[in-house]
Amino acid sequence: MSDSITDITIIGAGPTGLFGAFCAGMRGASCRLIDSLPELGGQLAALYPEKFIFDVAGFPRILAKDLVKGMAEQALQFGCEVRLGETVTGLQKVEDPEGKGAIGHFLLETDHGVYPTRTLIIAAGIGAFEARKLPAEGVEVWEGRGLEYTVRDPAAFAGKRVLVVGGGDSAFDWVANLVGVADWVTLIHRREGFRAHLATVRQIERLQRQGKCEVRTFCEVKAIAGGERIERVTLTNTKTKEDEVLPFDAVLPQLGFHSDLGPIKHWGLDTEKADIKVDQVMATSVPGIYAAGDVAAYEGKLKLIATGAAEACTAVNHAVHYLDPKKKMNPGHSSDLKIFANQQLG
Amino acid sequence: MSDSITDITIIGAGPTGLFGAFCAGMRGASCRLIDSLPELGGQLAALYPEKFIFDVAGFPRILAKDLVKGMAEQALQFGCEVRLGETVTGLQKVEDPEGKGAIGHFLLETDHGVYPTRTLIIAAGIGAFEARKLPAEGVEVWEGRGLEYTVRDPAAFAGKRVLVVGGGDSAFDWVANLVGVADWVTLIHRREGFRAHLATVRQIERLQRQGKCEVRTFCEVKAIAGGERIERVTLTNTKTKEDEVLPFDAVLPQLGFHSDLGPIKHWGLDTEKADIKVDQVMATSVPGIYAAGDVAAYEGKLKLIATGAAEACTAVNHAVHYLDPKKKMNPGHSSDLKIFANQQLG
Repeated sequence: MSDSITDITIIGAGPTGLFGAFCAGMRGASCRLIDSLPELGGQLAALYPEKFIFDVAGFPRILAKDLVKGMAEQALQFGCEVRLGETVTGLQKVEDPEGKGAIGHFLLETDHGVYPTRTLIIAAGIGAFEARKLPAEGVEVWEGRGLEYTVRDPAAFAGKRVLVVGGGDSAFDWVANLVGVADWVTLIHRREGFRAHLATVRQIERLQRQGKCEVRTFCEVKAIAGGERIERVTLTNTKTKEDEVLPFDAVLPQLGFHSDLGPIKHWGLDTEKADIKVDQVMATSVPGIYAAGDVAAYEGKLKLIATGAAEACTAVNHAVHYLDPKKKMNPGHSSDLKIFANQQLG
Repeated sequence: MSDSITDITIIGAGPTGLFGAFCAGMRGASCRLIDSLPELGGQLAALYPEKFIFDVAGFPRILAKDLVKGMAEQALQFGCEVRLGETVTGLQKVEDPEGKGAIGHFLLETDHGVYPTRTLIIAAGIGAFEARKLPAEGVEVWEGRGLEYTVRDPAAFAGKRVLVVGGGDSAFDWVANLVGVADWVTLIHRREGFRAHLATVRQIERLQRQGKCEVRTFCEVKAIAGGERIERVTLTNTKTKEDEVLPFDAVLPQLGFHSDLGPIKHWGLDTEKADIKVDQVMATSVPGIYAAGDVAAYEGKLKLIATGAAEACTAVNHAVHYLDPKKKMNPGHSSDLKIFANQQLG
């Protein structure tokens, strides 16, 4: 275990976790931010980056992806350690290791490492996201051999024949990103009508008319075949039930995500349905563990970005106070802080 | 009493009150916003418009005045009625006027009118702001006769000899606004050194070198004299104690504000020191009256813009539920709302 102990570890890098990381930095607390997704922003980045949000204080409207950008800049300015693409798998409490009456610490395990931390803030929203799998029998053997659920870089598909599956924003965005890079791009969708942003759909339809890609509706994957890697895909027309075998090198299902709190449910925290019960300072039933955002439950709770941000702030400031009761709970006014003096003149 | 009854009346148009007005609009609740200050934004507008704020979610940094601008646009889009420059003076409960088991309503009195409302949200911060008075004996008789604490329009001073008193931003901003409009502008300050933004001080010093205004330090008002209106002011040098009588038509003290919760303290609400005690849904001890922001007290409370916004949101949504228990408490995701469809395409 090579990782150093932090004052605070935050599970979840959505708006709540990001604002928590910012608040930790404001208090001079060391902080680690862990998320199962490959990027910051939680649901805003994964589910609706191109949607406008209207209920964040000070923004009459803002694209979800732009809010994430601002919140990430704000969160990371103090050097918070970020661990993306890591799913939490377990938690151990280490009680007072030197027998000196200390509060002890936790070891947080992910599928990539073990992280010691003095306090924990669970800002996991509705849980770890996992891509919905392609609903075709036996296709799982092609994962990593051309069947890719999480892709970051269009350049990886240069010269390849790519099949994108889905009717939402991420499916259409991938087609737009791959046209001109891949050798060929086909998008299939099992129904007529798309959930994607109208402007993106129109863009792809224009590209189709120019012969640069193909969009097929009432179409789904029946089977995948090939050698070392994918070579052919059998497509079925959902209305006529006719099959057609076409040559493809890669299949990118973009069917959304499902989420699961996973091991967090088994940490002995008081829960209320799928949520974690907290008191007014966002403390759970286990000392040193706090919860904030959609996962935190209390009387009168509203599941909003504005309330999640305030809860993260409360959780962090009380975690700081829990670690050192001599420290004030209230962080003071940011406009009075000397640490920002240079920025004010900048 | 000609004013119509509203679902919600919010006392205080600072960030908390503004976000409350927005949340009321989101729920389709009619709303009235009342503040003793002549403009929206509370302390941000009155005390530190030119300071950067760093702890509002999504803004790595933002000038206080720019945050107010965004929050005001967001707050007023649904047609909330705004009453500025009105100080709350009293509150009466009207119990079930028609004897039908209804929840009754309140009559909120200000120095300008009586406003009927079904619920009340107190977002009064540290109370109603009042300009600090000029510390010179007997000058109060000149109020309204040339001695002006609240001024909106530089044009009112066209052709006049104006004395501005103070060393902060508002004093310097008034000098900048009046040079070229007034016949003459003198700024006096009792000490050396100014609290105003350095750039503004430099601007006024340039104007002084050009002979367009005068700045005197170690100088204060000793007496005011004249006939129907101000004609002369006696200035004292605080070091030499020498007096000098100069001709002025107007005196504008810009000495900051003090604040007071005033009559709100006597409404029978449970309080904790100067703050109003609330439960987790921001309800006070009086049904139908909520509190949010700096004035609201509960265990673990942090006095921040982020927490105030969340509290306003909670208060509004619970007020809506209190008025009609059939309505959901949770407002849902703004990104899903049909009412914004046009804006999304705009």
